[in-house]
Amino acid sequence: MPVYNAPLKDLDFVLHDMLGVHESSVPGYDELDRAFTGAILEEAGKIARDVLAPINASGDAEGCTLENGIVRPPKGFREAFDLVREGGWTGLDCDPAYGGQGMPYVLATAVAETQVAANMALNMYWGLTHGAYSAIHVHGSEQQKQTYLPKLVSGDWTGTMNLTEPHCGTDLGLLRTKAEPQGDGSFKISGQKIFISAGEHDMSDNIIHLVLAKIPGGPEGVKGISLFIVPKFMVAEDGSLGQRNGVSCGKIEEKMGIHGNSTCVMNYDEATGFLVGDEHKGLRAMFTMMNEARLGVGLQGYAQAEAAYQNAVAYAKDRLQGRAVTGAENPSGAADPLIVHPDIRRNLMDQKSFVEGARAFTLWGATMIDASHRAEDADAEGLISLLTPVIKGFLTDKGFESTIQAQQVYGGHGYIEEWGMSQFARDARIAMIYEGANGVQALDLVGRKLAQDGGKHVMAFFEMVKGFLKENAEHEGLQQGFLEPLKQSSKDLQAAGMFFMQNGMKTPNAALSGSTDFMHLFGHVCLGLMWARMAKAAMAALEDGAEDRDFYEAKIATGRYYMARQLPATGMHLKRIETGADPVMALAEEAF
Amino acid sequence: MPVYNAPLKDLDFVLHDMLGVHESSVPGYDELDRAFTGAILEEAGKIARDVLAPINASGDAEGCTLENGIVRPPKGFREAFDLVREGGWTGLDCDPAYGGQGMPYVLATAVAETQVAANMALNMYWGLTHGAYSAIHVHGSEQQKQTYLPKLVSGDWTGTMNLTEPHCGTDLGLLRTKAEPQGDGSFKISGQKIFISAGEHDMSDNIIHLVLAKIPGGPEGVKGISLFIVPKFMVAEDGSLGQRNGVSCGKIEEKMGIHGNSTCVMNYDEATGFLVGDEHKGLRAMFTMMNEARLGVGLQGYAQAEAAYQNAVAYAKDRLQGRAVTGAENPSGAADPLIVHPDIRRNLMDQKSFVEGARAFTLWGATMIDASHRAEDADAEGLISLLTPVIKGFLTDKGFESTIQAQQVYGGHGYIEEWGMSQFARDARIAMIYEGANGVQALDLVGRKLAQDGGKHVMAFFEMVKGFLKENAEHEGLQQGFLEPLKQSSKDLQAAGMFFMQNGMKTPNAALSGSTDFMHLFGHVCLGLMWARMAKAAMAALEDGAEDRDFYEAKIATGRYYMARQLPATGMHLKRIETGADPVMALAEEAF
Repeated sequence: MPVYNAPLKDLDFVLHDMLGVHESSVPGYDELDRAFTGAILEEAGKIARDVLAPINASGDAEGCTLENGIVRPPKGFREAFDLVREGGWTGLDCDPAYGGQGMPYVLATAVAETQVAANMALNMYWGLTHGAYSAIHVHGSEQQKQTYLPKLVSGDWTGTMNLTEPHCGTDLGLLRTKAEPQGDGSFKISGQKIFISAGEHDMSDNIIHLVLAKIPGGPEGVKGISLFIVPKFMVAEDGSLGQRNGVSCGKIEEKMGIHGNSTCVMNYDEATGFLVGDEHKGLRAMFTMMNEARLGVGLQGYAQAEAAYQNAVAYAKDRLQGRAVTGAENPSGAADPLIVHPDIRRNLMDQKSFVEGARAFTLWGATMIDASHRAEDADAEGLISLLTPVIKGFLTDKGFESTIQAQQVYGGHGYIEEWGMSQFARDARIAMIYEGANGVQALDLVGRKLAQDGGKHVMAFFEMVKGFLKENAEHEGLQQGFLEPLKQSSKDLQAAGMFFMQNGMKTPNAALSGSTDFMHLFGHVCLGLMWARMAKAAMAALEDGAEDRDFYEAKIATGRYYMARQLPATGMHLKRIETGADPVMALAEEAF
Repeated sequence: MPVYNAPLKDLDFVLHDMLGVHESSVPGYDELDRAFTGAILEEAGKIARDVLAPINASGDAEGCTLENGIVRPPKGFREAFDLVREGGWTGLDCDPAYGGQGMPYVLATAVAETQVAANMALNMYWGLTHGAYSAIHVHGSEQQKQTYLPKLVSGDWTGTMNLTEPHCGTDLGLLRTKAEPQGDGSFKISGQKIFISAGEHDMSDNIIHLVLAKIPGGPEGVKGISLFIVPKFMVAEDGSLGQRNGVSCGKIEEKMGIHGNSTCVMNYDEATGFLVGDEHKGLRAMFTMMNEARLGVGLQGYAQAEAAYQNAVAYAKDRLQGRAVTGAENPSGAADPLIVHPDIRRNLMDQKSFVEGARAFTLWGATMIDASHRAEDADAEGLISLLTPVIKGFLTDKGFESTIQAQQVYGGHGYIEEWGMSQFARDARIAMIYEGANGVQALDLVGRKLAQDGGKHVMAFFEMVKGFLKENAEHEGLQQGFLEPLKQSSKDLQAAGMFFMQNGMKTPNAALSGSTDFMHLFGHVCLGLMWARMAKAAMAALEDGAEDRDFYEAKIATGRYYMARQLPATGMHLKRIETGADPVMALAEEAF
């Protein structure tokens, strides 16, 4: 069975050595000294290893069942969730006014990595609850906040997001779910929603559905969408639970993975709903949460890769097969361990350099969300808005690829479910799809985010890279394998941006044909920047006489690997982008 | 439910327009005129569409069961297999002396594509039988041939390959299964074999296991391996079936995919076995079949991609979501079909250009196997031996990637099993692993095949590309988007080969660290060559006034896409290769 150990040392390195969270002036960050974050993450790591990970494979094998309208998650999920909510983990970064612990989002993100890596399907039950919490916290009335937030924060109730319908996912303008006003401030919601994660289950006392629907007579398309709270059980004024609302689970989907999470078809049959925020402004309310939710999905991509990587390493060290070409390294054994073989090394280095870079990228992104929320830093808000589709799209594409590489290390055993590697790949696959399929992320990036605020944020990103290169031009350590590749890849990114500017206005398809390549190009430059910053921090730690020299030296070598062997992808993506729309759009529809 | 239609027009194009099989002087090819291959493939296509494809998804959902030692495949598999064997499809390219139809292997390969695309798990039952047939046909005694071949050819009996044991797959020198000579020419085989596809089932009257084992007292390692026939039921001299042999299925593996094929743990308990070929020469006997078997696995990679592509196209044309950025293309509908969006086009073009290139590459490879077997063409044998790891490794890596892209077109529905896209991806995944994991293919390519016969075959490949470029230097059609990219990618491949020559002798790890990149670089150049040849053929057909102009024009445009947007990958692979061993081998084992 797969194992999982939280990468405590690396999380500490990213938070403190690289990001320097303890030195930040963002409100709340003064609490984040090494001792504090270390204690929190150590405890989170224990829960991940001892409580969540042991029921990951069994949850996958068992899945969820629907009987007489009641959905039962796999064995052990309820007990594990109880431990998590009793420990206060569901409200780590929530508002203290509603029982939360008010910690920075960056710390909650680091904790979430451990939970997602250990058991993605289980983590989603409270992960989505956090999304519902945020929607109500930002857009709900004071009464709605008082009614719902304390229970969502404590995890006694859980939450869901209801967007997709059978005929529409990305294009929400097409949705048909109706909300008829009842004249008393409430609405009757009717329609069908699909792909609702944690839509129904018996692990919480109540489920608070956030539902997009149209109020008849409103504007056409996305401008006529409103957001509603639809509780599974009605809530009385004193907070007690009343009768069952008109919402039920029609079916659990059979999926490729995340079997432990109940993905439901939800039927709304004149269910009572309450408007959140203004009429017809529902999409805006949903979008408020998008940066956060998409960062969370990017995290799922690399967290699955981390878990898969740990097991691939263990297998590569344990499995004896063949001999090192340079001479036996385990002469007393029947063969050498797999890890002596260069191609296995290459495979493991691909994974390691991706996962560590992705972790830095995601936690950096989380600090921008904190800066935006806690310090009203508009530049940080703009930059994270630009980078969000990159975090979501690039990290989930690459995260899945990385789980496939980990599976490959196992040879035939990787294909057998009992070894657990298949589950990492199957679970990671969904992250490329939900919360906006990665093609939609690329479209968002190229079609909206690049030009947002007059292109200010992408310029700020280029300036940041330029600034780093200038500031460290004489840095001897970084001169060896870091500065030049970062410079080259950033030039490729700028050239791609330039191509879009010169061609995209006249021929929008010339830009959109290169959108996925641009997202990947951008992702590589971001990870290149992360690696340069991490290498600088590691070199500084070594110079300061840090104790764990092996860790810092490995960090620098892993960075050199990324720069030398991953960053050259930017040139390929640029070439693809510069071919424009013609090759992509050449065929008539009938020719496919 | 997914659909499948055999790509008859494209198969005809590759066989005749591009490869010109009807003009070949290889014995047996004179039969292969368009009318004949067209009739065979049309019939094969019908069976694939009407018989095999309809039970693909149900076979995946149902899987195989083991009860009291008896393995039952999914419903309908037996009946479908009956139709296939009654139609003579199992012996299409087998020796007429044993009931086969003696057709060229290239035609059997084209037929196999349709069967594998329609139902990979089911096809494997007779696909592996063909492997057993070949082993006995090449290495068996006359008596063994008479006893086993007619029934294997007719499909009344099926065959298996038993190599892997729990502790060894790639490194067969470690195997422990013993073969004790009984003094009467027979052996008692004892040991355990795992991952035995179609190892046990009730779809044939007998199962002929080909088993690698060691005769006590023989040489150590791979030099002491012998090959044995171990029938499930003993065969009497008159051909009637006798008692059950000491071989049984201990377990069916739960796998990520190909659920319809029974992957068995096989226990040999003093089972009676008969030596095939010479003592201790078993590995050579197995290797004889490797080129063929590995080509067959490469085919599985692109055949799954073909099936997934067909469905992705249908979905992209059907699903309405969003509007074309250049203005509504379906103004009377609520939205435009997905296929109007450039990123969906890019996705579909990636798939289409890969699959068609892969088909050409595989069928070209099959003609070399024919030339080698039927015309004793040593150059063809050398070239296909070089290209076999590329066909296997590159086409299965890319084939899997392509199924993932097809799944992505479906958005959330792609993740739901009932839509069938998950199965294509899960089934395609195994092809990267079995018959030598792709890392082993890369090692075979760089560590053995490149230098084989003094590097003669890779030089012949370069000469072939050079010859094509020279011969067509003035070809106006090819000048537009074909010659230059092919030249550049071939230069990248030569530069990589040069790097290995200059560094690999002194530092073997410098070559082996780049082995997977080299395999992919080589694969791209091969597909680039295939596309240039296909484009040339299509341009000639247009010039000759061919009827189906749309087909040929689409072929050329698809080729241009591959050259413009896929071939730039060669530059990236070269850069990665040229970093040598240092980045890959830098870390101490403990640092992972």
